[in-house]
Amino acid sequence: MKFYDCATAPSPRRVRILMAEKGIEIETVQVDLMNGEQMSEAFRKINPLGEVPVLELDDGTSLTQVMAICRYLEEIYPDIPLFGRDPVERARVDSINDQLQANGMVAVMEAFRNATPGFVNRAMPGPHNYEQIPALSERGKLRLDNFFSDLEAHLANNQYMVDDYFSVADITAFAAVEFARWVKKSVPEEYSNLLRWYQQVKQRPSTAA
Amino acid sequence: MKFYDCATAPSPRRVRILMAEKGIEIETVQVDLMNGEQMSEAFRKINPLGEVPVLELDDGTSLTQVMAICRYLEEIYPDIPLFGRDPVERARVDSINDQLQANGMVAVMEAFRNATPGFVNRAMPGPHNYEQIPALSERGKLRLDNFFSDLEAHLANNQYMVDDYFSVADITAFAAVEFARWVKKSVPEEYSNLLRWYQQVKQRPSTAA
Repeated sequence: MKFYDCATAPSPRRVRILMAEKGIEIETVQVDLMNGEQMSEAFRKINPLGEVPVLELDDGTSLTQVMAICRYLEEIYPDIPLFGRDPVERARVDSINDQLQANGMVAVMEAFRNATPGFVNRAMPGPHNYEQIPALSERGKLRLDNFFSDLEAHLANNQYMVDDYFSVADITAFAAVEFARWVKKSVPEEYSNLLRWYQQVKQRPSTAA
Repeated sequence: MKFYDCATAPSPRRVRILMAEKGIEIETVQVDLMNGEQMSEAFRKINPLGEVPVLELDDGTSLTQVMAICRYLEEIYPDIPLFGRDPVERARVDSINDQLQANGMVAVMEAFRNATPGFVNRAMPGPHNYEQIPALSERGKLRLDNFFSDLEAHLANNQYMVDDYFSVADITAFAAVEFARWVKKSVPEEYSNLLRWYQQVKQRPSTAA
């Protein structure tokens, strides 16, 4: 297998953290997003969407999308389960992970891409060009305020995103909280539950990935 | 188990179609979204997000989010698998399903909620209020044009979303194509591959759900 990555990008980072948690090592190729390598003819043979991460299997099959790749790795490396340990727990991890993706990762992405000069006409990733919408960047920042306050409330009663079980949902939330710095949003200092959780996750060696 | 539904809403419909494909029958409660029942105190005890669908388990646990519910049902009713039949196929279904969700379902939702008078201040579902952004509604319609043309190209080489295997990704795509009517977008008549696929899926009894 070969993992197409970009060391500075938040989406492939989620896969890197998951691999580190599971102790998986996969040959990794850096894709130079800063210089548009993801849109090169060579890379679009690997992923026509022009996006990282990609997990290329030995038979040449390319797996794309963060969660599909993570779930595949969970399935072939089931030790240290990160998607839940029974059907109900798996559904709870899945549910909150989807919300963290939509309300955290996507909110930062909208805030960032719709207001950053280098992304004129590239307000969304993928093969199609879309103009920036300044109001969408502003809404992204508002959504991050709610993202932080919702997490603060949630973590008053949970050690991790689902009870006391560290899961892929914590990886998503952690990546989103750190990605939020790109739009100058950070956890308010009075959010003691969220900060406690953040420090706890930050101490895991995997988050250096 | 109890399934909280709204017969006219596109998100719970995806679960209904999956249940029909699998031949599952679950006691169903209609939630009156038109009159805001999802935001009532009684319903928010079941789902604090104020959203359908919800699958309430016999012990009172509420499972939320379309895909988490569908995946849970796949796990407890594994006959007639709709998420793939081996790890690679599951990853491929997952990957394209995520794209169909983002580029189809979400695009219609953005186009619809950001331009419909009844959704002033309610541009996103969930507990927080957000103002409408007219440019986001317009972008949603542009994205649907690309959604249709991408599917047309994809279906030139695939009977269904993943090869000749009918999966949950086809349910997502079908729900998105029909949801697009809400913003007066329909498949262009020259898109013969997409229309062939649509008719083929439409003929399945499950789509009456």
